[in-house]
Amino acid sequence: MKTIKFPKRKEWSEILKRPTQSLKDIEETVNQIFEDIKRNGDEAVQKYTSLFDGVTINDLLVTDVEFKKAATEVSNGLKAAIELAKANIEKFHKAQKTEKIFIETTAGVSCWQEKKPIEKVGLYIPGGTAPLFSTVLMLAIPAKIAGCKEIILCTPPNSDGKIANEILYAAELCGINKVYKVGGIQAIAALSFGTDAISKVYKIFGPGNQYVTAAKQIAIKYGIAIDMPAGPSELMIVADNSANASYVASDLLSQAEHGVDSQVILVSTSKKIINAVNVEVKNQLTDLPRSEIASQAIKNSKSILLNNNEEVLDIVNEYAPEHLIVCLDDNDDLIKSITNAGSVFIGNYTPESAGDYASGTNHTLPTNGYAKAYSGVNLDSFTKAITFQKISKEGIKNIGPSIELMAEAEGLQAHKNAVTLRLKDLK
Amino acid sequence: MKTIKFPKRKEWSEILKRPTQSLKDIEETVNQIFEDIKRNGDEAVQKYTSLFDGVTINDLLVTDVEFKKAATEVSNGLKAAIELAKANIEKFHKAQKTEKIFIETTAGVSCWQEKKPIEKVGLYIPGGTAPLFSTVLMLAIPAKIAGCKEIILCTPPNSDGKIANEILYAAELCGINKVYKVGGIQAIAALSFGTDAISKVYKIFGPGNQYVTAAKQIAIKYGIAIDMPAGPSELMIVADNSANASYVASDLLSQAEHGVDSQVILVSTSKKIINAVNVEVKNQLTDLPRSEIASQAIKNSKSILLNNNEEVLDIVNEYAPEHLIVCLDDNDDLIKSITNAGSVFIGNYTPESAGDYASGTNHTLPTNGYAKAYSGVNLDSFTKAITFQKISKEGIKNIGPSIELMAEAEGLQAHKNAVTLRLKDLK
Repeated sequence: MKTIKFPKRKEWSEILKRPTQSLKDIEETVNQIFEDIKRNGDEAVQKYTSLFDGVTINDLLVTDVEFKKAATEVSNGLKAAIELAKANIEKFHKAQKTEKIFIETTAGVSCWQEKKPIEKVGLYIPGGTAPLFSTVLMLAIPAKIAGCKEIILCTPPNSDGKIANEILYAAELCGINKVYKVGGIQAIAALSFGTDAISKVYKIFGPGNQYVTAAKQIAIKYGIAIDMPAGPSELMIVADNSANASYVASDLLSQAEHGVDSQVILVSTSKKIINAVNVEVKNQLTDLPRSEIASQAIKNSKSILLNNNEEVLDIVNEYAPEHLIVCLDDNDDLIKSITNAGSVFIGNYTPESAGDYASGTNHTLPTNGYAKAYSGVNLDSFTKAITFQKISKEGIKNIGPSIELMAEAEGLQAHKNAVTLRLKDLK
Repeated sequence: MKTIKFPKRKEWSEILKRPTQSLKDIEETVNQIFEDIKRNGDEAVQKYTSLFDGVTINDLLVTDVEFKKAATEVSNGLKAAIELAKANIEKFHKAQKTEKIFIETTAGVSCWQEKKPIEKVGLYIPGGTAPLFSTVLMLAIPAKIAGCKEIILCTPPNSDGKIANEILYAAELCGINKVYKVGGIQAIAALSFGTDAISKVYKIFGPGNQYVTAAKQIAIKYGIAIDMPAGPSELMIVADNSANASYVASDLLSQAEHGVDSQVILVSTSKKIINAVNVEVKNQLTDLPRSEIASQAIKNSKSILLNNNEEVLDIVNEYAPEHLIVCLDDNDDLIKSITNAGSVFIGNYTPESAGDYASGTNHTLPTNGYAKAYSGVNLDSFTKAITFQKISKEGIKNIGPSIELMAEAEGLQAHKNAVTLRLKDLK
């Protein structure tokens, strides 16, 4: 890790710059595949699955037999772990339920807001080297709590045409039975338009590689909502001498092993802890199976030494990290002033891994500084708020004259007239 | 209005089709202006203001003197109307505040969620023939309640280089003092990149013409969040013989006067009310100052006669109207089953105008069927939810072993290691 000592504020934005991810080169490819799937449906989906995943899939939908077989092949220990994680994620997301909000704003004017589930949602789970069954939990559990009627899960098949047992087990455990063996651009396009096999959805959730990210952006153009824009995963750690250097190093490495483009930043007012963490990172790195990926990510990462806690707070809020670990002698002062972050982990015994898997919080979070404007996935991500109003005769008498004046001032006579007609009858 | 009698379900999607709005043709123009403003800042902003608004503006920021003068030129009657509307909008949006959600998911594992204001937001208010000061209220009030620190309002100047008095009055009343005389693509680009005069924001809100709509879509590519995608305004009315045909007609016309592309649909199981409304529409249309626009919109609009209430409910949810007026002998049955709508108006004395101006609900709503996945603007639109967690020694002992198993099964050894190190020390 490169250490940067006491940078001036005007240098911060350069230091905090993330590697830009250009999707322009692949946009044309994505557009073509979207058009093809819009026209040719499942046939095109199967064509691209052969092309990109190297396997011919006749039945995209995972069968009951496959679900049952998968369940027998997951160890009991892992099943219990998944169930504990599920219970915690359920508790935290159930607690996010909001009641109907009702208020009489003026006598006779009743207004309320109700959250309703988004009826049809698509969950995308990446394939690749590791089966990310934890993401199944993070998306399926709030979708179920919200009450989404149709929940469709797409995930790419391996070269044998199979889905990882853990993904199928987690899906079934969450009550998802529509799992399709389709990944990449073709999955997002199928969810956007609908095919004979796969229903069109209203909103698409989930992480993915640059092709999936680009495809989700194109989906927006076709009127589909998405959870949030995506970028490489990242972690910022704020530590002082009360932090355990070995733990801090292990957290930095857990983020670094995600990919060579992972972002890892350590911020401190203590030179001592920065040095100690750097030594620990080197020691721990050698033993990791993914050490090549992690060491590449660590090479691009930074330790930043700052003058005081005020600077620490400001740099956190300027960076707006996806994950933020805070390990200070006094955490409370900083915590209460954080305005921009995805998810915050506090103290020596709160590794990022906890939130990635089992503490209950969601791990689908805004990267790339999007935490300045976006929330991580939460229960509300699967609902929309509808407003209602009911006005009595008395109510329209109370607010009608104001509406008439305002509508007239905006030059909208028919808006005024809708009120005038009613008021006239009530005289 | 064209009346369609008892259409088959498979014909619905064709009948409910909205006029598609293609932004492709103007995308290139928008991209060029964005690049120019990114490079040349205020100079480019002023160039496009001259070009598109036909006026040279040296000081983009509205001065105190201009605010004061505007306030003296708004009538006391209108001021009182605006204040009543403001009070109601405030009540309804304040009621949407949510408390911190705290839960101990497992002993020693504390998780919580807090909403934080988006620090910097941009509000766009269209210019044109009518000064839409009501939209100032709808955006500025929740932004203030949420606690957004920097609120910037952009609106195009008229050919004299002025902003409508009502817009300035409403802005000042809401505590907004950064109002810039800039509109169209150049306003959205300036808010996206920041210039010397105008600060960069994290999220942009507000309606606009097709250029503004396209510009907001391009802003997303530069990492800026937007309130929602936009389309022409629309209204669906569900009525039976208990509805007052004259009121229904006035509501349809209030929507129709917005623009020739406004969408107006009447749905009923009663041929009698459809006929009566059609007669009333013709009668009322002639007297409107904007009758040309309204009659064009009415020409493209439809009355749909259906067999039963079940069909009525299904067609509402399939269309997902921005505005829905329900005027039935028994409203409750339908209301409780509505899943897709922006804002719902119930009964004979609840015109859409009420929600447009003064009842308290927000009038910035999802058009174009987006109500299937998007909420209208509400208090949460100006906040993001951050999650926090703090785990004790006991807590990590309780969930640590599960995290280890799951991380290992996902092939993420460093994630496991971050827990293993801690558990080892606690043995």
